[in-house]
Amino acid sequence: MSPSQRRPVPLSKAYRLLNHGPTVLVSAAHDGQRNIMAAAWAMPLDFEPPKVAVVLDKSTWTRQLLEAAGTFVLNVPCAAQADIVQTVGSTSGLELQQGGGDKFQAYGLQTFAAEQVEAPLLEGCVAWLECRLLPEPHNHQQYDLFLAEVIAAQADSRVFSDGRWHFEGHDALRTLHHVAGGHFLTIGAPLDGQLLKP
Amino acid sequence: MSPSQRRPVPLSKAYRLLNHGPTVLVSAAHDGQRNIMAAAWAMPLDFEPPKVAVVLDKSTWTRQLLEAAGTFVLNVPCAAQADIVQTVGSTSGLELQQGGGDKFQAYGLQTFAAEQVEAPLLEGCVAWLECRLLPEPHNHQQYDLFLAEVIAAQADSRVFSDGRWHFEGHDALRTLHHVAGGHFLTIGAPLDGQLLKP
Repeated sequence: MSPSQRRPVPLSKAYRLLNHGPTVLVSAAHDGQRNIMAAAWAMPLDFEPPKVAVVLDKSTWTRQLLEAAGTFVLNVPCAAQADIVQTVGSTSGLELQQGGGDKFQAYGLQTFAAEQVEAPLLEGCVAWLECRLLPEPHNHQQYDLFLAEVIAAQADSRVFSDGRWHFEGHDALRTLHHVAGGHFLTIGAPLDGQLLKP
Repeated sequence: MSPSQRRPVPLSKAYRLLNHGPTVLVSAAHDGQRNIMAAAWAMPLDFEPPKVAVVLDKSTWTRQLLEAAGTFVLNVPCAAQADIVQTVGSTSGLELQQGGGDKFQAYGLQTFAAEQVEAPLLEGCVAWLECRLLPEPHNHQQYDLFLAEVIAAQADSRVFSDGRWHFEGHDALRTLHHVAGGHFLTIGAPLDGQLLKP
């Protein structure tokens, strides 16, 4: 995607980037180190100011970085990136870091700079939410649950504009919805619900 | 669906019913009263024992009932039910209850009994998770966020078996993923991610 296809998403519409339940990639950076991991357990938590919730296992390097930084990014990947999602969700950034590298270098992942936070944004995704962690240590410790406020959002205008996703003609840009073990479903056809009369 | 198509889902696999991010219907019952509402903000929270997180606005009657009962059900609706989802997500059960009715009566919604909880399970859905609320009043008050343990789960074996969704040939049973304002996306085609070599 050329940078010119990225558009800011108004914060009041940022929840719509996650409302349909896509699997996300969580990126974080702190003190010159960076990492990215997959997370299927993410959802909106509030409309405006927009908030999100995401579950991050204690064993993850990304969690250590985002706790230190207090910020992170939810990248919304697409069908063309299924192998990247499976790979960054199955490998340890800490091991690579101990060898002086990281997942971005190891797998040739291109990034661009966030507007508000230190974490890198992954090229080729279809949406990005920059987030500031809310201080809720009980949820972190007890449930591996992290709540955050969304402070900036962007999306690929080919598939998201005016607050709506429109994937027709862009199958490679459809969002990914993980079931288990590298098996995903991509998002499908639109359907409008009508109000029934009592 | 005939009841014979419903199969229990092992608790260790229950998270897979929500892992791909479907919109859910939350049902609750207490003291002879019952309600059902739509919620797009729901996700797994843990594997085993399985836990879930769901956001429920303070204004909702379903929330009052589930707080009183301490239990609820997440019903996973399908494309054939888009109008039902839109309707129960846009109408007030409390108003109907004050008139002596409820959403089930008003819209002709058929239910069947849960195994472990008081809340009704909606016929025609493709999965059902019976849940017991975890006592986290700070999350309730501050974030409208409810965490719960899943204590029983079932799915329609036509589209979920052996821990996997398989919607091919069953378009009417595809899960719904709400974007906004009654506009849904249905879940689409499967895709397997492969591990990249560093």
